[in-house]
Amino acid sequence: MDMLSCHLNRSIDIPLYEQLYLYIKKEITEGRLAYGTKLPSKRKLADFLKISQNTVETAYEQLTAEGYVEVLARKGYFVMAYEDLEYVQTSDHLSAETKVKEEKVKFNFHPSAIDTENFPFTRWRKYAKNTIDKNNHSLLLLGDSQGEYELRQEIAHYLYHARGVQCAPEEIIVGAGIEILLQQLLLLFDEKTVYGVEDPGYHLILRILKSYPNEVYPLEVDEEGVKVNRIDTSKINVVYVTPSHHFPYGTVLSVNRRTKLLKWAQAEDHRYIIEDDYDSEFRYSGKSIPSLQSMDLGGKVIYLGAFSKSLMPSIRISYMVLPKPLMKRYKEKLSFYHSTVSRIDQHILTQFMREGDFERHLNRMRKVYRRKLEKVIEILKPYQDKVTVIGEQSGLHTVLVVNNGLNEQELVQKAFEANIKIYPMSSYSLEKKYQNPPKIILGFAGIPEEELENAVVSLLKSWGF
Amino acid sequence: MDMLSCHLNRSIDIPLYEQLYLYIKKEITEGRLAYGTKLPSKRKLADFLKISQNTVETAYEQLTAEGYVEVLARKGYFVMAYEDLEYVQTSDHLSAETKVKEEKVKFNFHPSAIDTENFPFTRWRKYAKNTIDKNNHSLLLLGDSQGEYELRQEIAHYLYHARGVQCAPEEIIVGAGIEILLQQLLLLFDEKTVYGVEDPGYHLILRILKSYPNEVYPLEVDEEGVKVNRIDTSKINVVYVTPSHHFPYGTVLSVNRRTKLLKWAQAEDHRYIIEDDYDSEFRYSGKSIPSLQSMDLGGKVIYLGAFSKSLMPSIRISYMVLPKPLMKRYKEKLSFYHSTVSRIDQHILTQFMREGDFERHLNRMRKVYRRKLEKVIEILKPYQDKVTVIGEQSGLHTVLVVNNGLNEQELVQKAFEANIKIYPMSSYSLEKKYQNPPKIILGFAGIPEEELENAVVSLLKSWGF
Repeated sequence: MDMLSCHLNRSIDIPLYEQLYLYIKKEITEGRLAYGTKLPSKRKLADFLKISQNTVETAYEQLTAEGYVEVLARKGYFVMAYEDLEYVQTSDHLSAETKVKEEKVKFNFHPSAIDTENFPFTRWRKYAKNTIDKNNHSLLLLGDSQGEYELRQEIAHYLYHARGVQCAPEEIIVGAGIEILLQQLLLLFDEKTVYGVEDPGYHLILRILKSYPNEVYPLEVDEEGVKVNRIDTSKINVVYVTPSHHFPYGTVLSVNRRTKLLKWAQAEDHRYIIEDDYDSEFRYSGKSIPSLQSMDLGGKVIYLGAFSKSLMPSIRISYMVLPKPLMKRYKEKLSFYHSTVSRIDQHILTQFMREGDFERHLNRMRKVYRRKLEKVIEILKPYQDKVTVIGEQSGLHTVLVVNNGLNEQELVQKAFEANIKIYPMSSYSLEKKYQNPPKIILGFAGIPEEELENAVVSLLKSWGF
Repeated sequence: MDMLSCHLNRSIDIPLYEQLYLYIKKEITEGRLAYGTKLPSKRKLADFLKISQNTVETAYEQLTAEGYVEVLARKGYFVMAYEDLEYVQTSDHLSAETKVKEEKVKFNFHPSAIDTENFPFTRWRKYAKNTIDKNNHSLLLLGDSQGEYELRQEIAHYLYHARGVQCAPEEIIVGAGIEILLQQLLLLFDEKTVYGVEDPGYHLILRILKSYPNEVYPLEVDEEGVKVNRIDTSKINVVYVTPSHHFPYGTVLSVNRRTKLLKWAQAEDHRYIIEDDYDSEFRYSGKSIPSLQSMDLGGKVIYLGAFSKSLMPSIRISYMVLPKPLMKRYKEKLSFYHSTVSRIDQHILTQFMREGDFERHLNRMRKVYRRKLEKVIEILKPYQDKVTVIGEQSGLHTVLVVNNGLNEQELVQKAFEANIKIYPMSSYSLEKKYQNPPKIILGFAGIPEEELENAVVSLLKSWGF
């Protein structure tokens, strides 16, 4: 960006730095300053607005403290504001102001969205009716803090057949979301634990890890998945990876690297691998990719899974499988916490799985998502010299590498002007160095099939194709 | 206790300290060593078992590290193992071993239990059916991270009318349990924050606070509630209190102390009061006690509430009302976390509240619990020279001060031998000094009305009355 045309008023009672701060904040929250935009240097902006550099600095620092802006050493200030990225606002109950803003959004390619049109409401309702019954009155009381045993049995059964994960119900902990489980997990490691995370990667995990005092190092990702060649000589002892389907690139971690990672973990007692198998249900071609946990004979892999993609993100049911030493620690340190998931919901889900509805739903959704992905690829085909599709074999999103002269920020901005929300790769990175060539993470799952063509074509048009 | 008759085997390959450790652990987990029991001194046990003091020390240290035992300066080692206290195991799906143990329990006076016989299953099911519907398909997607706006509206309305709490839906955060909300809250305070907690008090909170690096100080409790006379000169800047109905004593915090506490908080920016209004719905005599939050004009009270007592502990829906400066911090630091409560459940609860079912249910349950409490008091009346009832005006539990020559541990043990589970005051204390005269927390709510007489009479019999 060039400059910020902020009109400062010296005759009112608000300090200049605060006027500048409020102006920039508004520009960010209302979407006129896009994610990743570099702000003008303090010197240039001070010159332009005819104010002191200190005033600019105070405003920038306030924005940084509040998380709207991030400072990168020797590079300058960049617009952050992850918040908007975090969830798709579909609620009817937003404040009037937000509502107007959101109503304008015609298509939202958020990677966390799912298809909501094919959910088996009738079956789910039936199991809810069965469960909410006077005969089950003891379900009102607190249950097992690890989650209901019957649900853990169903999960263990599913994991074994679908993912090759070998575990007993006793090794599973059910919780209200991956974040909750991750926070519990972090309490099991000591304060000196050093984490390694894929970069780019799942930004929620990055953000949670960064809010702890522990050191966190980024691990680069290429076409074989996360690079592990230098992990031996690093200080890292716990890595967070998405081996079956890297988020967001979609790559599968190569067998060589899997072996290397497992060997690395086995070499030291305190080393562990957190495997987030977040959307492994949806693979459309080739053989199913086995989980890293299923290759691990040393008890070094913590397996994380969720029903966010396979059922609905709003259900808040996730699970983790702990290796024995960690389960022991969990029982000693954390078993006094109550379960974070409603017992009634756990029993509804148990029935849904036990009666075969879960498998049927997955089979149906695999077809729906494959059709959606094929449609996206088909529409993009004529533009293949300018738009490359990455990670097109699985998942609920794909990555577009766009090569038409526009940078990431411009691609996001142009789309936004056409009322389309898209999410740039750099928002999912610690190091912010994945901006060239520009990449867009395209969550296609939430767009209804009949609107998908229009949505993608409108996006291409907004980019000048 | 006198001595531990552990048979150590010098001819097997397990170190002596480990044999001793395993033996004591088993005694604790299988209920033969009750909560609060003092272990023999290291010297005495070493003499008795003819092993070195180092061996005993290593075993005791291992037990302490794992939380089975706690060491009190100049007093010795005491059996802890809170775990069993934490929830009533009513699940059908316990492992075979636990099941046998639990099946024997005829009456469980756990303070977290509720009456499960009068829950309006039909109405709840109706709202579940309404909510789980194709027309609500957007409920599958992620919602507002603070909780559904409509639910927060209902909570704000209820809090204003029932508790005098003035708040807007925007100031409420919904979460999957008080523990989750408390953990979020702790992230809003800095690392140097020093906490004060009522002692005795709600042990889950004590335990969570103690698992953080911050300093935690106990605050004594008398018949006027928590003692605040020395808080000014302490290092404490955040206190956790239960002013309407102290847990577990049941006392109401006096107006003098409320005023003092509020003034203390207002004197410094970083001071706050966490008010846990955990069962304020159930008061049977006298005027309703206003919340501390309603007396606070300075924005210093964080109000915590839950549906655990008023609906069911297994639903995992709680809420907190944040003062403005903390809400600002929450939005900056934590709004990227997803909500921890299922959106469908939030909408079921919204309808239940909006249609008046919640109020009707509370009115009905107030009568049920009052009848149960009156029954307990009536049965105990002939024994009033030996058993005093404390906190008999409200709540789902009462405290018995027992004066028949048995100590706390013996009372618990005698009841246990008669297959009755009761919970001693000392389990809810940081300082373990509330053992004389012995006090038992009697959660009467979970015992069916028709069994209550038998339960209390059996308990008295087990004590030799």
